[in-house]
Amino acid sequence: MSEFDLIRRHFTRATPSALLGVGDDAALLQVSAGNVLAVSSDMLVCGTHFFTDADPYLLGHKTLAVNLSDMAAMGANPRWATLALSLPKVDEAWLEQFSAGFFSLAQQHGVELIGGDTTRGPLNLCVTIMGEVPQGKTLRRDGAQVGDEVWVSGSLGDAALGLAHLQGKIDLPEDARIHCLAALHQPTPRVALGLALRGVATSAIDISDGLLSDLGHILERSQVGGEIDFVTLPIPDVMISNELKQRCVLSGGDDYELCFTAPAARHVDILSISEKLNLPLTRIGKIVAGQGWVIQDATGNQLKIESTGYEHFQ
Amino acid sequence: MSEFDLIRRHFTRATPSALLGVGDDAALLQVSAGNVLAVSSDMLVCGTHFFTDADPYLLGHKTLAVNLSDMAAMGANPRWATLALSLPKVDEAWLEQFSAGFFSLAQQHGVELIGGDTTRGPLNLCVTIMGEVPQGKTLRRDGAQVGDEVWVSGSLGDAALGLAHLQGKIDLPEDARIHCLAALHQPTPRVALGLALRGVATSAIDISDGLLSDLGHILERSQVGGEIDFVTLPIPDVMISNELKQRCVLSGGDDYELCFTAPAARHVDILSISEKLNLPLTRIGKIVAGQGWVIQDATGNQLKIESTGYEHFQ
Repeated sequence: MSEFDLIRRHFTRATPSALLGVGDDAALLQVSAGNVLAVSSDMLVCGTHFFTDADPYLLGHKTLAVNLSDMAAMGANPRWATLALSLPKVDEAWLEQFSAGFFSLAQQHGVELIGGDTTRGPLNLCVTIMGEVPQGKTLRRDGAQVGDEVWVSGSLGDAALGLAHLQGKIDLPEDARIHCLAALHQPTPRVALGLALRGVATSAIDISDGLLSDLGHILERSQVGGEIDFVTLPIPDVMISNELKQRCVLSGGDDYELCFTAPAARHVDILSISEKLNLPLTRIGKIVAGQGWVIQDATGNQLKIESTGYEHFQ
Repeated sequence: MSEFDLIRRHFTRATPSALLGVGDDAALLQVSAGNVLAVSSDMLVCGTHFFTDADPYLLGHKTLAVNLSDMAAMGANPRWATLALSLPKVDEAWLEQFSAGFFSLAQQHGVELIGGDTTRGPLNLCVTIMGEVPQGKTLRRDGAQVGDEVWVSGSLGDAALGLAHLQGKIDLPEDARIHCLAALHQPTPRVALGLALRGVATSAIDISDGLLSDLGHILERSQVGGEIDFVTLPIPDVMISNELKQRCVLSGGDDYELCFTAPAARHVDILSISEKLNLPLTRIGKIVAGQGWVIQDATGNQLKIESTGYEHFQ
């Protein structure tokens, strides 16, 4: 099968929202009036982000999901994506499953695959996602204000617990295992939440490297500090050691929940968004003057944290 | 060095043309009024597109150049790029040279790096490029008309000859070697030509997989045929066998010249563009009714061609 057949068979779907889709030197897109374009790229590498035997359907889902999560964190409405993939060989069954997982999630979010590249090489998946957001309504990292509340969506640490289970570090009971492995393999990007937070949140980020690392980016860019109450964190109810729990929740990667800040005056609005989306939103602390975060336990003592996030090159 | 330090040190330059550049969940871009966005992704993989010992400065150049070439082929003015790279390890000297080559070419074309990703894994470079083109002025593959002339820029086969030399298949004399290796390692994207051809050419493509393969895409999308005169092809003056010459010129990859069609009535306009840009533009044949291409030798006999282009998966 040629590269062109491969693209035609597995990666060409209708692109009614594009002026020109797959099949030319570039796709042509029209950004809606009054909107700016939000653009982000994420690369998933075999051996680094997933195992060789990863289920291709779930991998197709996750490849797009981590990119949709970036759109959510900007308050952008995802519209288009390119997919560049490097494959060791053409495996029809794998490609069929991978593209099915990718397009299933794309369709849910109205995202069209408008271009990309296929080439031979070690398995590598690179998506660039493009979305729209009305000018002035973007959720940036640099808008947190002293006095804001800090919130997170969903629960934290599930994916990290799932990974720890796969690595044989813990042995999760069946219910928790199913839940945590789903969080790891098939994360739900919080796109609807990002859209709902336009004009409500003062800053937002998606949690991909662990809460503390990613919250740290908001604090740094906004030049403020943060106080987090450990007991308020939405943590899966699993019987594991406190140390491991802390590590997974605070520094585990792959959550793809949103961490955001909003004025205390919007507290009720956020609870109403939570109810409308049927998605837990938890106030976990507040923004203070200063820099960096502190984490307090139930008695108000500061927790000491060693690792603060996933690092590719350390 | 952390991933964040790596990005800060090597891949963060001013992005005055973006509303928001590197450092948030996504970049924010404003497409100029009256323009549409042209988007393309190209991935370069170690072992497939370049050798392990490739000069990092030239590799940085080429990684961007092949993407700029796609903008040229659409008649788009390149504006922004994302770069996702997977690296086996952090090699400061390599990164410094790679980013210097990348940014040197970016600066020449006013392109800003507005985002991307860095991760650990086999060396892989993925660029998504975004450009602007006034609505209705794009150079697509599907506009060739019966009676149009077929043109190519520059000369064909140089990069393929350079590769054949590196592979020990031929032994080029010094002058030709320098020229052909430069064409292979440091191709010149024909961006200015693409802009000049707006409103003149009826279709265009950049030659990355070999003339016949890429011209074939224009013919297929335009539902026309093409007659090419072999003797008119702009071929480097190198003493090698006719068979190898044909293969390099017709089916060799990595030329990154433009192949385009234009009405015969625009012949003089094209010669004047050639003069203005100081870039050879050669009429190599014409568009006819039918499908596919034929190639004629000096006596009008059809040449038989076996391989018609680079294929990753064959």
